[in-house]
Amino acid sequence: MKSDKIKMNLQCPMPKLDFDIITLGHGSGGLLTNKLLETGVFDLLKNDLLDEHMDGARFSLDGPLAFSTDSYVITPVFFPGGNIGELAVNGTINDLAMCGARPRYLSLALIIEEGLSMRAFWDIIVSVKFAAEAAGVLVVTGDTKVVERGKGDHIFINTSGIGQVHPDARLGANCVKAGDKIILSGPVATHGIAIMSVREGLEFETDIESDTCALHFAVETLLDRFGPAVHLMRDPTRGGVAMVLNEIARDCRLGVDILEKNIPVLDAVQGGCELLGLDPLYVANEGVFIAIVEAAKADEILQTLRTDPCGAHAAIIGEVVEAHPRQVVLQSKIGGKRVVNMPLGEQLPRIC
Amino acid sequence: MKSDKIKMNLQCPMPKLDFDIITLGHGSGGLLTNKLLETGVFDLLKNDLLDEHMDGARFSLDGPLAFSTDSYVITPVFFPGGNIGELAVNGTINDLAMCGARPRYLSLALIIEEGLSMRAFWDIIVSVKFAAEAAGVLVVTGDTKVVERGKGDHIFINTSGIGQVHPDARLGANCVKAGDKIILSGPVATHGIAIMSVREGLEFETDIESDTCALHFAVETLLDRFGPAVHLMRDPTRGGVAMVLNEIARDCRLGVDILEKNIPVLDAVQGGCELLGLDPLYVANEGVFIAIVEAAKADEILQTLRTDPCGAHAAIIGEVVEAHPRQVVLQSKIGGKRVVNMPLGEQLPRIC
Repeated sequence: MKSDKIKMNLQCPMPKLDFDIITLGHGSGGLLTNKLLETGVFDLLKNDLLDEHMDGARFSLDGPLAFSTDSYVITPVFFPGGNIGELAVNGTINDLAMCGARPRYLSLALIIEEGLSMRAFWDIIVSVKFAAEAAGVLVVTGDTKVVERGKGDHIFINTSGIGQVHPDARLGANCVKAGDKIILSGPVATHGIAIMSVREGLEFETDIESDTCALHFAVETLLDRFGPAVHLMRDPTRGGVAMVLNEIARDCRLGVDILEKNIPVLDAVQGGCELLGLDPLYVANEGVFIAIVEAAKADEILQTLRTDPCGAHAAIIGEVVEAHPRQVVLQSKIGGKRVVNMPLGEQLPRIC
Repeated sequence: MKSDKIKMNLQCPMPKLDFDIITLGHGSGGLLTNKLLETGVFDLLKNDLLDEHMDGARFSLDGPLAFSTDSYVITPVFFPGGNIGELAVNGTINDLAMCGARPRYLSLALIIEEGLSMRAFWDIIVSVKFAAEAAGVLVVTGDTKVVERGKGDHIFINTSGIGQVHPDARLGANCVKAGDKIILSGPVATHGIAIMSVREGLEFETDIESDTCALHFAVETLLDRFGPAVHLMRDPTRGGVAMVLNEIARDCRLGVDILEKNIPVLDAVQGGCELLGLDPLYVANEGVFIAIVEAAKADEILQTLRTDPCGAHAAIIGEVVEAHPRQVVLQSKIGGKRVVNMPLGEQLPRIC
């Protein structure tokens, strides 16, 4: 789900408050914290499990579970195509999806820097609400802390999530074998370039928007139809496709061959990468995933994925090979070959 | 478990590293992040479920579950009696215990400020390890982010946790009735005064140590023996006993009467409170809980709780009443009565 600020503001107008910025007292656990949360926030996120007045949520969930956590420290917190709120929801949903799980319940823990405007706070929580609704997950427990000015940066959000593992999921590095095909679900580097285009000191004109979205519906369709033919999934966030393919090669002790010409990159994103001198393979993504699949089923899986909105530009970008174990080798558009190494650090910090 | 730094350092010496502070690159998700985590950290926290190379942990857990989250932003991160690492483990364990659950799995998400020394990082993670082991919980998934100097404060830690609800737990505001007794498990205000004694600009000489500890073993014993006779539990962290009793009165729509003379406070803590002009009822705790229990079983529950190390000073401090609904009334040592209001904010921010 992408931020549609006008629609959201109409549906969820900010309540009238007697404060317009968040102060240290709002993180005290006292009356002010209650006021901040009860003035609409609990209403926004309302569901039967949300522990408004308990120390945790209680529920029953059958079958094997997946559990994941991520903190989001992205700067700026509002960026083209979204904000930290929906990013935090989608990001943890996607981590669960990569475990083959249907995300069910999320926690939401906020670390707010004193002075954050109530307007920004509200827009972020509204965005959490819409992202969670669109994905069919419930925010069931949370925490709010406030730190002094200069000890944080607007807002950091941690989401942890619990999901139910698909009964036909057989995912793991040990399931991958030479010959498997590598499917990429969509164009790369979009999120990273969208953030960089508005990063202080680096601004450039473009209409690229972050690709942040929830991938679990697409994943569920693949597991429903192809189950054990999907051998491993990973979403290439920090460190990009280069990082994830290197991790896969390392964990499977096999080689990875990819074809540059098959890797989808939006024209504007390619332009942004050239402007900044970046290789799109190393730039962060928030709305694509890599699936390592049984070769015999690869075309069918690809066609199925392409029917999903998040997979319209999916492509088979390469395969797993016996040769050069633990190494990722790219064949360039002009036919040359080069090793794609793990990135040492990130081109820019705080991309998610 | 309290920090025993000498013992921990002997058992878990810091590995030799080619960096002695944490830099932005360590939060990139690239090679440097791997290096930080694989240089001992994964070894320290090792267990079969820890998702070293997956996006989440997978496991099965029977029965109703509890799920809770908390971020820890305490300053200073090393304080008398502990550090932010064990606080983050014990705090989330206690939130699960208050839901009547046996804590099983934790997530650990770090937001590190660039420049944190590797020594401090290591000591904190070692402390996480020992606290988790002592409590019988596993850290199964995690995340590491690094923010620039001046955009964080040493380290913030989020832990989320999953526990299994005790089959005999019948806890909730709707279970509380007039006549129920209020048990406090130990002396109040110890954590808050320990932190304040070392807070910049406020230092005073004392040997008070934080009471941070895991309460779930004591809780489990009570639920094993008394099950439905325990009606509600809550740990009075931020906002102290005053906040929690007010929340209970509000949620149960009943009154709360407490006796000042019955409320245990260590002498040194009482002295600290007087020095700082604080009411111990409003000061944060990390190792005590309040249980609202069936009157007929109260003495027996108290005696049982006193056999647990964390409950040695437990006391019945008052009762739930029909009179003055939603209000907490304290009878002072000299016999006067006063209303104990909800705190507006906190005396000092970032106490946990």
